[in-house]
Amino acid sequence: MKIVLIGATGTIGQAVKSLFDNQSDYDVISVGNTSGDYQVDISNLNSIQQLYKKIGNFDALVSTAGQVAFNTLTELTPDEWQVGLQNKLMGQVHLVTEGLKYINEKGSFTLTSGLLSHDPIKYGTSASMVNSAIEGFVRAASIEMPKACRINVVNPTLLEESVPQFGDYFKGFIPVPAAQVAQAYLKSVAGLQTGQTYKVGW
Amino acid sequence: MKIVLIGATGTIGQAVKSLFDNQSDYDVISVGNTSGDYQVDISNLNSIQQLYKKIGNFDALVSTAGQVAFNTLTELTPDEWQVGLQNKLMGQVHLVTEGLKYINEKGSFTLTSGLLSHDPIKYGTSASMVNSAIEGFVRAASIEMPKACRINVVNPTLLEESVPQFGDYFKGFIPVPAAQVAQAYLKSVAGLQTGQTYKVGW
Repeated sequence: MKIVLIGATGTIGQAVKSLFDNQSDYDVISVGNTSGDYQVDISNLNSIQQLYKKIGNFDALVSTAGQVAFNTLTELTPDEWQVGLQNKLMGQVHLVTEGLKYINEKGSFTLTSGLLSHDPIKYGTSASMVNSAIEGFVRAASIEMPKACRINVVNPTLLEESVPQFGDYFKGFIPVPAAQVAQAYLKSVAGLQTGQTYKVGW
Repeated sequence: MKIVLIGATGTIGQAVKSLFDNQSDYDVISVGNTSGDYQVDISNLNSIQQLYKKIGNFDALVSTAGQVAFNTLTELTPDEWQVGLQNKLMGQVHLVTEGLKYINEKGSFTLTSGLLSHDPIKYGTSASMVNSAIEGFVRAASIEMPKACRINVVNPTLLEESVPQFGDYFKGFIPVPAAQVAQAYLKSVAGLQTGQTYKVGW
């Protein structure tokens, strides 16, 4: 099974790569912003189109990528709002809509949101908005998928690996290791469910 | 109480206007695209800023406005995706962020999403995404509201008044009259709750 992993060098991406490499029949193609087998800027539709042209047909797309700006509600600028909309949200949407042209029959897409969708913190309004949007997109896209394809989204809580950097913004949140989060992506790719939001750790 | 009603000439907007006009102490300022006491293009940040400059201080903002493009998942164009993002989503977000500069202490914002957020139909992926995004925004914005302000969102099912035009896309959905939906906006404005999604009819 040929699996395209976007965000392969991120904390979750590395854990997914490691888990999937241990599966007997998974061939993971690593895609990063600046490293990996291929590079892509998901905020740029043309960059996504070029990526798929190079990779060709595949069986599963896993996206663990996406940038969002953090700031207080009253100080988020128009440009900061657009970061989340054009990168984490429409970046992942375009990975799906363009990927549908190359994905094999019965393939799957697995995207990433995050617990701020329903458990907001200070500075996180844009992330809450974008993560909720991704889940709404997945619920709806799942019923229109051509080629018997599936689509799910993984919604992880704070990662243990992220506590040193971000823990102060998530006081009282119970973190989980990225290796545990990675299992949800495997469940999505290996299973038959579609339209699901897999919450991990909350 | 001075209430700014955006989308006052729409089906829900008219019902809200009628209900609020019957309250003893509500002074409703009607805002439409091309009619009403004032006009605004909510997809244009400058237009929103000009609107508030003209209206000045107020106590409650009710938005029943917002455009989204409908098309199949595989045929939604980049421009069509942007309609929902820049109009119904960021239009309402900017009504809040700009409105915060003019709203009185203990004021409230009430936005509008729609049941496609969780109950998708063919052609509705962008609407599902945008409606979910609005709810995520409201959940998060509610905890950062300055001046003891509140924010909620009304999520109505199909309107009885919309059945002749849109009923074929919502087969099996039970519609409700706009007058019933209007009550949820009154509940939001008159009550003390914040961060809530008020589902009506589903």
